[in-house]
Amino acid sequence: MLKYTSIAFFFAYVAFAAAFEETSLREILVEENVVEFTKEEIPLVNDEKQNTKRYEPTWKSIDSRPLPSWFDEAKFGIFIHWGVFSVPSFGNEWFWWNWKGTKNAAIVNFMKRNYPPDFTYPDFAKEFTAELFQPNEWADLFKDSGAQYIVLTSKHHEGYTNWPSNVSWNWNSMDVGPHRDLVGDLASSIRNRTNLKFGVYHSLFEWFHPLYIQDKAGHFKSQSFVARKSMPELYELVNKYKPDIVWSDGDFAPDVYWNSTEFLAWLYNDSPVKDHVVTNDRWGTGIRCHHGGFYSCSDKYNPGVLQHHKWENCMTIDRHSWGYRRNANIQDYLTIHDIISTFASTISCGGNMLMNVGPTKAGMISPVFQDRLREFGSWLKVNDRLYQGENFVLLSLIHLNVDNLF
Amino acid sequence: MLKYTSIAFFFAYVAFAAAFEETSLREILVEENVVEFTKEEIPLVNDEKQNTKRYEPTWKSIDSRPLPSWFDEAKFGIFIHWGVFSVPSFGNEWFWWNWKGTKNAAIVNFMKRNYPPDFTYPDFAKEFTAELFQPNEWADLFKDSGAQYIVLTSKHHEGYTNWPSNVSWNWNSMDVGPHRDLVGDLASSIRNRTNLKFGVYHSLFEWFHPLYIQDKAGHFKSQSFVARKSMPELYELVNKYKPDIVWSDGDFAPDVYWNSTEFLAWLYNDSPVKDHVVTNDRWGTGIRCHHGGFYSCSDKYNPGVLQHHKWENCMTIDRHSWGYRRNANIQDYLTIHDIISTFASTISCGGNMLMNVGPTKAGMISPVFQDRLREFGSWLKVNDRLYQGENFVLLSLIHLNVDNLF
Amino acid sequence: MLKYTSIAFFFAYVAFAAAFEETSLREILVEENVVEFTKEEIPLVNDEKQNTKRYEPTWKSIDSRPLPSWFDEAKFGIFIHWGVFSVPSFGNEWFWWNWKGTKNAAIVNFMKRNYPPDFTYPDFAKEFTAELFQPNEWADLFKDSGAQYIVLTSKHHEGYTNWPSNVSWNWNSMDVGPHRDLVGDLASSIRNRTNLKFGVYHSLFEWFHPLYIQDKAGHFKSQSFVARKSMPELYELVNKYKPDIVWSDGDFAPDVYWNSTEFLAWLYNDSPVKDHVVTNDRWGTGIRCHHGGFYSCSDKYNPGVLQHHKWENCMTIDRHSWGYRRNANIQDYLTIHDIISTFASTISCGGNMLMNVGPTKAGMISPVFQDRLREFGSWLKVNDRLYQGENFVLLSLIHLNVDNLF
Amino acid sequence: MLKYTSIAFFFAYVAFAAAFEETSLREILVEENVVEFTKEEIPLVNDEKQNTKRYEPTWKSIDSRPLPSWFDEAKFGIFIHWGVFSVPSFGNEWFWWNWKGTKNAAIVNFMKRNYPPDFTYPDFAKEFTAELFQPNEWADLFKDSGAQYIVLTSKHHEGYTNWPSNVSWNWNSMDVGPHRDLVGDLASSIRNRTNLKFGVYHSLFEWFHPLYIQDKAGHFKSQSFVARKSMPELYELVNKYKPDIVWSDGDFAPDVYWNSTEFLAWLYNDSPVKDHVVTNDRWGTGIRCHHGGFYSCSDKYNPGVLQHHKWENCMTIDRHSWGYRRNANIQDYLTIHDIISTFASTISCGGNMLMNVGPTKAGMISPVFQDRLREFGSWLKVNDRLYQGENFVLLSLIHLNVDNLF
Repeated sequence: MLKYTSIAFFFAYVAFAAAFEETSLREILVEENVVEFTKEEIPLVNDEKQNTKRYEPTWKSIDSRPLPSWFDEAKFGIFIHWGVFSVPSFGNEWFWWNWKGTKNAAIVNFMKRNYPPDFTYPDFAKEFTAELFQPNEWADLFKDSGAQYIVLTSKHHEGYTNWPSNVSWNWNSMDVGPHRDLVGDLASSIRNRTNLKFGVYHSLFEWFHPLYIQDKAGHFKSQSFVARKSMPELYELVNKYKPDIVWSDGDFAPDVYWNSTEFLAWLYNDSPVKDHVVTNDRWGTGIRCHHGGFYSCSDKYNPGVLQHHKWENCMTIDRHSWGYRRNANIQDYLTIHDIISTFASTISCGGNMLMNVGPTKAGMISPVFQDRLREFGSWLKVNDRLYQGENFVLLSLIHLNVDNLF
Repeated sequence: MLKYTSIAFFFAYVAFAAAFEETSLREILVEENVVEFTKEEIPLVNDEKQNTKRYEPTWKSIDSRPLPSWFDEAKFGIFIHWGVFSVPSFGNEWFWWNWKGTKNAAIVNFMKRNYPPDFTYPDFAKEFTAELFQPNEWADLFKDSGAQYIVLTSKHHEGYTNWPSNVSWNWNSMDVGPHRDLVGDLASSIRNRTNLKFGVYHSLFEWFHPLYIQDKAGHFKSQSFVARKSMPELYELVNKYKPDIVWSDGDFAPDVYWNSTEFLAWLYNDSPVKDHVVTNDRWGTGIRCHHGGFYSCSDKYNPGVLQHHKWENCMTIDRHSWGYRRNANIQDYLTIHDIISTFASTISCGGNMLMNVGPTKAGMISPVFQDRLREFGSWLKVNDRLYQGENFVLLSLIHLNVDNLF
Repeated sequence: MLKYTSIAFFFAYVAFAAAFEETSLREILVEENVVEFTKEEIPLVNDEKQNTKRYEPTWKSIDSRPLPSWFDEAKFGIFIHWGVFSVPSFGNEWFWWNWKGTKNAAIVNFMKRNYPPDFTYPDFAKEFTAELFQPNEWADLFKDSGAQYIVLTSKHHEGYTNWPSNVSWNWNSMDVGPHRDLVGDLASSIRNRTNLKFGVYHSLFEWFHPLYIQDKAGHFKSQSFVARKSMPELYELVNKYKPDIVWSDGDFAPDVYWNSTEFLAWLYNDSPVKDHVVTNDRWGTGIRCHHGGFYSCSDKYNPGVLQHHKWENCMTIDRHSWGYRRNANIQDYLTIHDIISTFASTISCGGNMLMNVGPTKAGMISPVFQDRLREFGSWLKVNDRLYQGENFVLLSLIHLNVDNLF
Repeated sequence: MLKYTSIAFFFAYVAFAAAFEETSLREILVEENVVEFTKEEIPLVNDEKQNTKRYEPTWKSIDSRPLPSWFDEAKFGIFIHWGVFSVPSFGNEWFWWNWKGTKNAAIVNFMKRNYPPDFTYPDFAKEFTAELFQPNEWADLFKDSGAQYIVLTSKHHEGYTNWPSNVSWNWNSMDVGPHRDLVGDLASSIRNRTNLKFGVYHSLFEWFHPLYIQDKAGHFKSQSFVARKSMPELYELVNKYKPDIVWSDGDFAPDVYWNSTEFLAWLYNDSPVKDHVVTNDRWGTGIRCHHGGFYSCSDKYNPGVLQHHKWENCMTIDRHSWGYRRNANIQDYLTIHDIISTFASTISCGGNMLMNVGPTKAGMISPVFQDRLREFGSWLKVNDRLYQGENFVLLSLIHLNVDNLF
């Protein structure tokens, strides 16, 4: 841990600040125009205090819900991208699209060299074996990393569900591949062994679903795909796994197509997780960064200045992919310094950091990911006072100086 | 061909009948109570004469449609059972149900001996390769067999569609396995090379579809499965492939659950095949043998007396299976004598014979099936005068004496 | 059996011959120059009478051994071609050579269409599953066919041994594929359930064995391959399975290269089967039809006139292949008429008929082969008096007239 | 670090010597009997000076050969364990033996859970795909690590050769699996892009080779296996790839069985690498640590005191395996501190360190191995003066203080 102790030296410089009330510091910073605070800042609320007001399926009403405070306090979560894309494990998790959509030469050649001519992406599913998946070990690792929540891809743009969905028959992890309920098994381990919150990522659209393609061809006037696939899935997920986070993605169509506000009104009013669930903002074209729960805006979003709406920086240890890549080299991974720097810059501006790992098709979180998670966990343990509560000002200072700290 | 010429000897005995008007013979038989004819006999009609009356979604109205006459004239069709069950190709086409439903010991042991413990039925799909499938060769063979129509399993109870259905994504022959549109490819070959009619078999229910299981658990009060799977499939099939026959099966629920009469009213009123399409009677519990088009009643149905409603005897060359069995022995197949006898007994009582072959997973119709089809085709060629038109009386006689013919 | 009874009519014509002594007839024929008999005719001997003379490793000495009489009396045997070539089961059993040796376009394209670019022939071995192989059922079938002996490919030109050979490690049926001793399992069933003799086919050369290629490149002056592979195999086979026939093939090099006479001297002098074993003549370039045991000369050898040396006509039911072909059509198989005709022409000239079937990779003898074997067995049962003993003269007559018999 | 502390006591005594000329120190140590240098110490010699004396096939003669000096100067090499064991990649590279030999429960259960009942180890070979193997990238990585030589498993105890050996047909990397000459491809890259020496590891025995088992059962009186497999392989390897190191292993039988001295005499007298080749000591029971080239004694050998015979510490970054383990956790890998400490303790006592990495079945050296190699390379670059030449005393000091250096 030696390599971090020099940070201590820097903090000698700001040590005096410990005497001040945090709010005072905050006020000073605001007064000095270091950061801006406006009335629109999202209010935080404890689960217990969640009021009993009912929400309308309009953005105005949805946006009025206070954000459960646990999310802001959590600061750090782990993102997990796992799916059929973990089988080719080459390029990135957009493998299917890169192959058949944009016909990326590297992917096309990889397939030509290694597979029969008419091999299809769904043919990969059988090789998604997950035979080494030990959800208890994952849970322990995540706990040791200092994370307060996790977000697992329940379904990515490929449409394959990591749980036995009623509306994704024979294209899910129980029927083909792992023969397990990956979402359920991980949820159980997380809840039995840790206090971490359990969240699910869910892609609204699917690259190649015929009903989606049909709806899209008709400029989203029909909603066959929404009615038969994406919405049934979301209701299933929430009712069955009671996630603390519904992390929406793949919202490449209008929110009215997706019936987003209807779902969110249900989620906030009547779902089994209505009081503490948190969601993001990727609920339809033009909605990101404007409506919903916390803002995830774009991948690796990091505005660099304090935001008045709670946001999250989802970023990934492998610089080039969210899914596991068998051909990644060590240079492709963020160093622990990169991670600390990103963390500091994120939380000092009011964001959470959602850091991604991509398990192997066999179900292992590879040693280099374990290393980064454990190292970061050690750093957090040493430096926890720095980022707990509202010490974001201290963290701003870390952020400003982080390149000089090591 | 020598071995059939001795039949000719028998016909010397009935040769004198050629002098009689067929109708006279018929009358005699009726008078003598050999056969019964009642007013309810289904009327036959040429396509051109199909009236313009619209049908209501009631059985009374549906049943009032005259049967296109081509079907009655056809006498002999070929049934083709092909699907994922052709991969294990063991036991019969009910493999999945026998394995996971009734837990048949032979099937369970076969799987234990030869597959990893958590192998699933959908895992077989990738091995459904069809690499030797030459639909033109099939078409030529079927033509040589003397058949006038074929009926291909577009989807069996396993739910896997042999065409790229919008509502069976990644569980169809384009996405996983053959990577071809089997229904479309065969339809093209049949239509380009022969005058045979092209029909599709379609199973309404699916053993393990989660939505079906859900509906069933609720005593068929909900119709999720019907709305999302079986009905969309039927409309797709008819609109896309314009089949001459819609051969329904797997109707283990009430017709009101299946929305059968609504579909049939559309099929008869507005579908692209409304004038010449033929359908059967397996449209819901209690409907078989009572409503619909021709009656298929039960498998291998053969009433033994002349019927007043057009019917079909669907039977199979492999005595024990409709799907191909890799472990079948020669004794398991009907001999050409068995087939001729069945044919005679069937058409002499007013039925058509729909004789089944099960192609291999690679797409071959195996030599023993080829042999039976070609032998039967040769027999038909020699004896065609015997069964064309309304010569069923002669055939009754053949039937009566068939055991003595060889 | 009706269809053969008309043969009886023909035999009415030759019935009178039953009154003659066979030898008389023979004498007559010789006298009339219909057939030639010379001093060189191979002597036949019962096992018990096998003399105790030791043989030298010279052709003169080897050739002097009388042929155990059981072989001449047997008349009919079954040849079985089974190996890794049964996996692609396309083209014929020379698949590997046609693909990589002569680069036959049909094979090359088949591979391109269906396999990854760098797939190799040895990669097929894993798919040689034999999971349906029931040697008892084979034995019963062979018995019912009327055969008196069988000859199984213990190893074809591919080099893969159907028994766990010490010198073919990981390229044999125990290590990769069936995970069974196919030679041993079939030998046991044959011996436990029938009186048939058990023989093994063995290819001396191997298309692609590196040591063979090396020896060949050096014009067969070195014998690495012989010393390390072919000879150890033959000794293993004989010592372990005590075959009644050693059916040599693939002798594309001089007999001195193969050490053929040394092996045969051992086989006749000291092997556990020395008294009753029979072998053929494919023991080196120029040896066929001149030295060894019975003459097999060339595939489908059928001289058409009575021979003064015992010979065998090895022929195959599939006109185009010895190995099983998944894409064979019914026209590709000999009819029962073809088979009887060949049998008559063969044994009437002093030959045995060795008729080939090719089991599937799963271990089934397909129905069309079963049909031919059982039909032929029925015919033999009816007509056994015709070919037992020395009734070859009658058979000559059958042969002459066989085309008019049906 | 405890295991090195006893060394510390000794070095306390010589700590003061830092001021002295190195050669003086050495003399002192010898005088004080701290270390022994005797006439038997292996002399070092440059390739150019390799004398022209011929060696006899006796240990006395073999041992008299001076060690080519490049090896002593190299100090650090990389060991690479790659083979079919990289496919299950579970437990360790002794997978086959642990499964079928000792029937280790973890392995047996792993197989039961994930494979069909009769799956064999050779069945794994097809999955040894190596599709991501980029030997140029390996070469660059090894160069950056500061290593001066590499040693690749040309064949481990499983018997599978990583080159297309004449005597391991269809059980080698060209015929089954990668379809590449792994030894040849890596040798080319190493030689084209680096100055590193290229060495090959070779296991004399093979767990399950039938000829070895046969020889062993006869108490090694016969040498079938040696004559047909191990010796031909070694000659092939040397003639074809001209390795700088022949690293023998698996010598579980007497040296006279292996014909070790004959091979070594040829290697030193007549082989294409006779002047600069280096070999180790694992050439037969009782030979290790007593005869041959440098001493490798036992795995992870690290005597802790200066040796008078050149030796090597072969050790592995994964504490529990030499082959890649898919289920390894980060704690299972040596840290960079562990590696530096081992390196110091090794070279300060006159040894070389041969550090092992296990590539994946796809051909990647995983990021955690890359990290250790690159980190160590960086350290070597900074500290190269410390270990070049005979600075072992400085290294002793590094060793003592290694925990305080960072």
